[in-house]
Amino acid sequence: MESELIRWLCERLPGHPSLLIGPGDDAAVLRLTERDGCVLSVDLLTDGVDFELDKVSPRRAGRKALAVNLSDLAAMAARPLAAVIALALPRDGGLHLAKELYEGLIPLAEQYRVVIAGGDVNSWDGPLVLSVTVVGEASAAGPLLRRGAQAGDAIVVTGQFGGSILGHHLDFGPRVAESLLLASQYTLHAGIDASDGLSIDLAHLAEASGCGAVVDVHRIPIAPAARELAEALNDGSTALDHALSDGEDFELILAVPADAARELVAAGPVACGCTCIGQFVAERGLWQRDASGARRPLTPRGYEHRLSS
Amino acid sequence: MESELIRWLCERLPGHPSLLIGPGDDAAVLRLTERDGCVLSVDLLTDGVDFELDKVSPRRAGRKALAVNLSDLAAMAARPLAAVIALALPRDGGLHLAKELYEGLIPLAEQYRVVIAGGDVNSWDGPLVLSVTVVGEASAAGPLLRRGAQAGDAIVVTGQFGGSILGHHLDFGPRVAESLLLASQYTLHAGIDASDGLSIDLAHLAEASGCGAVVDVHRIPIAPAARELAEALNDGSTALDHALSDGEDFELILAVPADAARELVAAGPVACGCTCIGQFVAERGLWQRDASGARRPLTPRGYEHRLSS
Repeated sequence: MESELIRWLCERLPGHPSLLIGPGDDAAVLRLTERDGCVLSVDLLTDGVDFELDKVSPRRAGRKALAVNLSDLAAMAARPLAAVIALALPRDGGLHLAKELYEGLIPLAEQYRVVIAGGDVNSWDGPLVLSVTVVGEASAAGPLLRRGAQAGDAIVVTGQFGGSILGHHLDFGPRVAESLLLASQYTLHAGIDASDGLSIDLAHLAEASGCGAVVDVHRIPIAPAARELAEALNDGSTALDHALSDGEDFELILAVPADAARELVAAGPVACGCTCIGQFVAERGLWQRDASGARRPLTPRGYEHRLSS
Repeated sequence: MESELIRWLCERLPGHPSLLIGPGDDAAVLRLTERDGCVLSVDLLTDGVDFELDKVSPRRAGRKALAVNLSDLAAMAARPLAAVIALALPRDGGLHLAKELYEGLIPLAEQYRVVIAGGDVNSWDGPLVLSVTVVGEASAAGPLLRRGAQAGDAIVVTGQFGGSILGHHLDFGPRVAESLLLASQYTLHAGIDASDGLSIDLAHLAEASGCGAVVDVHRIPIAPAARELAEALNDGSTALDHALSDGEDFELILAVPADAARELVAAGPVACGCTCIGQFVAERGLWQRDASGARRPLTPRGYEHRLSS
């Protein structure tokens, strides 16, 4: 029953000084630090597309639903504040499932000091759907946008890429702390999180900035999972292919002025690592450059939801 | 394609002075009027439960998805500011469907000066799911909560009740302007919107306030649709039964100090009408009282999502 779940939630969820009115009323009421820079993002996840409940525990699915949203806030260099969660639950076992989803996402919320401010619970005859909306606040440096990259800026990425389907896409840590730290210590011109794929998300950023990008493919930090996947698939795809196009890496792709980028990479201020993998150029488009310096077009590849008109 | 829909949206959606960063980045950025009282609500609607796409146009479905959220803000006496919209679309015809949903909700957004700040688009093999999250700002009187009703307060409702399934549940006007006007001119102790059913939502409000309520059932403003439905069903249910339990009226149920309630009802400040239908009492519970003054328990009835554990 919906009311039973709300009662359970009211007891289970910790309070938060910014949450003036929590779950159980018609809406939640938050107190923000500033009136400017309220950052808002929503992601909807479905069983069978973003996870498969017959293979993955509901806790990991619930965790992922919040984590992908926190990654969007990280891409904006915003501090997470609150989340509201809407569920469409299968009727059979829905209450237990809802509690398990929450048990998966609550620890992540606590880790990032995100208050669960409210939600909506529905049951239906379809598979699980989870929609999470997060509210954050822009950092003092202002929101980090996709537009703003300039020719000559370095392409700096956090972490490693590829093979996320082997587990990382469920268990990744959103780069919230890393993003806030980098934005506070370095000039960042633009940023995006790699959700659809390194090459396609880089193309999105370049396009929004009205410039192009050259990727030094031999410098891309390739995740061990990308090698593992290439080996397991044995279909001619390389670990590099997976790094460029798998998506759900949820690493940051940043445009950083060249000097700041050199400093940043040398200082190594974040544990996941920061790597310079190329540079933005005036000419629109995407290119790959190998260790010999030879340059050829790079086709952006990654995940795009297929929709017919 | 997702990117095609985003391009279409960027052109189709009007801007708004409070929207600093709109659709197309990793998150939206809003400017609020105040840093306190950021009001947040989410509602998720599914094809087959909240509407049936084989009977109802996507425009009406889209409109409803925003309207139910605005009704939640009205219940908080909050001024709507922005909405983000997450969609799970059937693959076949999904792009056209998405545009039609937006064409249905954009006029309502414009009417209430709500900016569509962003969203998420997914395709899958399931039926349509729409999740709308709205952000509003509490009025000067502060957020109107469910708790706060006091023994002796009048139960004041807007509009009429019952039979919403005949069309009102899709085409209702959320009581946003009415709520803001009433909150600015009268003392309101508590409020809720009638989404699950007059009797059950009144019971929720009374329970949250730690009191009870006596309903003068002969005073309930019964919608013509409630009579029509009772007649059409011919199953022994009366128009009053429908008014008490149908739900999706999306009218306001308010706890108003007795003096203020008399003034309010006499002044008739809102076009949809305000009616006093009883009073809150110290003893917890719900009762009905007929024209003769006889009082007996009233079982709260209405919609509750059925979930098994």
